[in-house]
Amino acid sequence: MPSYTAPTKDLQFVLHNLLNVTKSDIPGYDELEPDFTSAILEEAGKLTSSVLAPLNAVGDKEGCRLENGVVYTPTGFKEAFEQVKEGGWTGLDMPEQYGGQNMPAVMGSAVGEMFSASNQAFTMYQGLTHGAASAILAHGTDAQKDTYLPNMVSCEWTGTMNLTEPHCGTDLGMMRTKAEPQDDGSYKITGQKIFISSGEHDMAGNIIHLVLAKITGGPEGIKGVSLFIVPKFLVNDDGSLGDRNGVTVGKIEEKMGIHGNSTCVMNYDGATGFLLGEEHKGMRAMFTMMNEARLGVGMQGLAQADVAYQNALDYAKDRLQGRAVTGAENPDGPADPLIVHPDIRRSLMDQKSFVEGARAFILWGASLIDAAHRADDKAADGLVSLLTPVIKGFLTDQGYDMTIKAQQVYGGHGYIEEWGMSQFTRDARIAQIYEGANGVQALDLVGRKLAQDGGKHVMAFFEMVKNFIKDNAGQDEAFDKDFLDPLKAASKDLQAAGMYFMQNGMKNPNHALSGSNDFMHMFGHVCLGLMWARMGKASMDALTEGASDAAFYETKLATGRYYMARQLPATALHLTRIQSGADTVMALDAANF
Amino acid sequence: MPSYTAPTKDLQFVLHNLLNVTKSDIPGYDELEPDFTSAILEEAGKLTSSVLAPLNAVGDKEGCRLENGVVYTPTGFKEAFEQVKEGGWTGLDMPEQYGGQNMPAVMGSAVGEMFSASNQAFTMYQGLTHGAASAILAHGTDAQKDTYLPNMVSCEWTGTMNLTEPHCGTDLGMMRTKAEPQDDGSYKITGQKIFISSGEHDMAGNIIHLVLAKITGGPEGIKGVSLFIVPKFLVNDDGSLGDRNGVTVGKIEEKMGIHGNSTCVMNYDGATGFLLGEEHKGMRAMFTMMNEARLGVGMQGLAQADVAYQNALDYAKDRLQGRAVTGAENPDGPADPLIVHPDIRRSLMDQKSFVEGARAFILWGASLIDAAHRADDKAADGLVSLLTPVIKGFLTDQGYDMTIKAQQVYGGHGYIEEWGMSQFTRDARIAQIYEGANGVQALDLVGRKLAQDGGKHVMAFFEMVKNFIKDNAGQDEAFDKDFLDPLKAASKDLQAAGMYFMQNGMKNPNHALSGSNDFMHMFGHVCLGLMWARMGKASMDALTEGASDAAFYETKLATGRYYMARQLPATALHLTRIQSGADTVMALDAANF
Repeated sequence: MPSYTAPTKDLQFVLHNLLNVTKSDIPGYDELEPDFTSAILEEAGKLTSSVLAPLNAVGDKEGCRLENGVVYTPTGFKEAFEQVKEGGWTGLDMPEQYGGQNMPAVMGSAVGEMFSASNQAFTMYQGLTHGAASAILAHGTDAQKDTYLPNMVSCEWTGTMNLTEPHCGTDLGMMRTKAEPQDDGSYKITGQKIFISSGEHDMAGNIIHLVLAKITGGPEGIKGVSLFIVPKFLVNDDGSLGDRNGVTVGKIEEKMGIHGNSTCVMNYDGATGFLLGEEHKGMRAMFTMMNEARLGVGMQGLAQADVAYQNALDYAKDRLQGRAVTGAENPDGPADPLIVHPDIRRSLMDQKSFVEGARAFILWGASLIDAAHRADDKAADGLVSLLTPVIKGFLTDQGYDMTIKAQQVYGGHGYIEEWGMSQFTRDARIAQIYEGANGVQALDLVGRKLAQDGGKHVMAFFEMVKNFIKDNAGQDEAFDKDFLDPLKAASKDLQAAGMYFMQNGMKNPNHALSGSNDFMHMFGHVCLGLMWARMGKASMDALTEGASDAAFYETKLATGRYYMARQLPATALHLTRIQSGADTVMALDAANF
Repeated sequence: MPSYTAPTKDLQFVLHNLLNVTKSDIPGYDELEPDFTSAILEEAGKLTSSVLAPLNAVGDKEGCRLENGVVYTPTGFKEAFEQVKEGGWTGLDMPEQYGGQNMPAVMGSAVGEMFSASNQAFTMYQGLTHGAASAILAHGTDAQKDTYLPNMVSCEWTGTMNLTEPHCGTDLGMMRTKAEPQDDGSYKITGQKIFISSGEHDMAGNIIHLVLAKITGGPEGIKGVSLFIVPKFLVNDDGSLGDRNGVTVGKIEEKMGIHGNSTCVMNYDGATGFLLGEEHKGMRAMFTMMNEARLGVGMQGLAQADVAYQNALDYAKDRLQGRAVTGAENPDGPADPLIVHPDIRRSLMDQKSFVEGARAFILWGASLIDAAHRADDKAADGLVSLLTPVIKGFLTDQGYDMTIKAQQVYGGHGYIEEWGMSQFTRDARIAQIYEGANGVQALDLVGRKLAQDGGKHVMAFFEMVKNFIKDNAGQDEAFDKDFLDPLKAASKDLQAAGMYFMQNGMKNPNHALSGSNDFMHMFGHVCLGLMWARMGKASMDALTEGASDAAFYETKLATGRYYMARQLPATALHLTRIQSGADTVMALDAANF
């Protein structure tokens, strides 16, 4: 059975060496002293590795069970959920007013990675709740906040998001779920929603569904969509639970993975709902939840890649098979460990350099969110908005590929469920699909985010890369060659791609959209390249300052060199594809496929 | 539920327009007239699409069941197997002497693709039998052939191959299974084998296990390995079944996919075995089976990609979601079909151009085998030996990626088992692992095949590409630009990579082996590039000759242009990685990972 070790040390490196959180002027960051963050990460590490990780395989094997309208979660989930709640982990970055601990998003993300890595299906119960609570926090009335948030922050009640219907997912303008206004200001919600994660289960006293629906008589299409709070149990004025609402689970979907999470078909039969935010502005309200969810899903890509990598690494050190081509390294044993073989190393280095780069990328993104929310930094807000589809799309595509590489290290044993590597790939697969399939992320990036605010956010990004290179060049020849030159080349590729879109997308938008997936990936590589260059610099600084754990920083530099030499050059291929334009992509009539 | 349509027309194109089989002087090819091959492919198409494909999901859902030592295959498998046997499909390319139809391998492959695509798990029962029969054909005594082959060719009896043990897969020198010589010339086989596909089941009267074991007192390591025939039921002199042999199934493995195939742990407890081939030369004999199996596995990569693509295409034409950015294409409907969106097209074109290119590659490979076996063509034999790891490794890696792309087209529905797309990915995944994991294929290619016979086969390959370009350049400007120039560039990249290995691999073999995976992939791309250039030429010729179905050939050209513009340039990235050498790959001590 696979195991999970929380990457506490690496998270500390990102927080303190890379992001220098205590030196930031973002409100709240001054409290993030190394001892303090270390204590939190250590505690989260214990809980996730010793309680949640052992339940991961249980959840996969047992799945959720629907009996007479009641959904039963896998053995041990309920008890573990109690432990998570008791530890106060569910409200880490929520306002104190509602029972949270008001920590910055960067800490929520650091801890969140551990939760996702140890047990993605389990963590989704609290993850969806967090998203729903954020939407109520941003768009709810004070009364709504008081009614729902305390119990949601503590996860006594959990939350869901209800968007998809059988005939529409991405194109929500076609939705059919109706909301009929009632005299008391509430609405009657009727319709069917599918793919509802954590839709119904036995771990919470109440479930607060956020449901997109069309108010009868409202505008056609997406402009007529509003967001509603539909609690499983109505809440009385005194906060106690009232009547059971008209929402029921139709069935649990049989999925490829994340079996421990109950993915439900939810039927709303005149259920009582309360408008959240403004009429017909449901998409805006839902996007508060979706943007947070997208960053969380990007993190799932990293998280599954990390736990899969950890186990592949153990296996590669343990399993004896063949001899190093340069001479036996374990001459007294019957064979050398797998890790001596160059192709196994290549795979492990792909994984390691991705995981550590992605971790930095995610926490940097979270720090931008903190800057935007806590310091009202408009530039940070624009930048993280630009990066959100990259974080979601690139990290989940790459994260999935990395779980596949990790599984491959196991050879035949990787294909046997008992060894647990299959689950990592099957669980990771959903992250490329939900919260906007990755094609939609690429479309969002190229079709919307690039040109947002006159393109100023992408220009700011390029400026940032340029300045980093300028500020750090000429000090160390090897660093220039190993880190800065590749970053410069990759950034130039990305700019050339943007230029191609500008010059050709005007006359035919297909020239831009045919390259959207490649652009998202090359953008992701440049971000990881930037992270690695920064981490390389931070590691050199630590070594210069005589850090006690030199091997850690040397390893960081070596891993960065690998990424720069072997992964970052992918930007050139993406650019070639983009510059080939739409002609070959769009050549065929649909009938001729 | 997904469906399968046999690609009869495209197979005919490859056989007759590309390979020109009837004009070949390979013995037996003169019989492959278009009407004849069409009749066979049509019949195979009916059987696979109407009988085997509907059982694919059944096999996945039910799996195999072990009860009191008996393995039960999924509902319907037994009856379908009877139909396959009655149709004579199991001995298509086997000698008439043993009940086969003596057709060339190229026909066996064309039909085999359909079988694999419609139901991979089911087809493995006959696939393993074919491999075992081939090994007996190549290495057995006349008495052994007469005893086993007639029933194996008809699949009254099925076969298996037993290599892996719990502690060794790739490194078979460590195997522990023992063979003790008996006075009557037989051996007593004792040991445990794992991952035995079709190891035990209820569809055959007897199961002929080919088992690798070490004769007691023989040489250490791989040089002491011999191959044995170990029938489930011993066969009496009159051909009737005798005693039950000492081989039993320990358990059925729970796997990620191919649930319809019984993957067994097999226990040999003093089972009677008969030496196949020479003492201590078991690996040589096993390789007859393995090489055939590797080509078959490469075909599985193509086959799953094709069936997944077919269904993704249907879904993309069917599912209404969003509007074309260039204006509604289905203005009377609530939305446009998915296929209008450039990123969906990109994905579909990736799949289509891979599938058709891979189909040509596989059948070209099969025609080389025919040339080697039927016309004793040493050059063809050397070339297909070189290409075998490429066919296995590249086509299964890419084939898997394509099933993932196909699944992605379905959005959330792709993740729900009911829709069947998950099964294609889960089934396809094994092909990257078994019959030598793809890392082993890359090692075989770079460490062994490249330099084989003084490197003359790889040089012959380059010469072939060069000659094709020379012979066809300068006739059509667009063809030169769209097809020949990209092929030339890619082939140059591949040569540069080979040169890098030669110059650097001598002083440190890790410089070559760190690039082995990239080399395998770039070799695969050049092969598909060559196939597309040839198919482009063949299509232009057909159009010049006024072929009636112009749209088919125009589509072929458009698909080829896509591959050349968007996929083939990957060789440059692989070259960059290869030329970065082993330094970043091997930098870390194992302890510092």
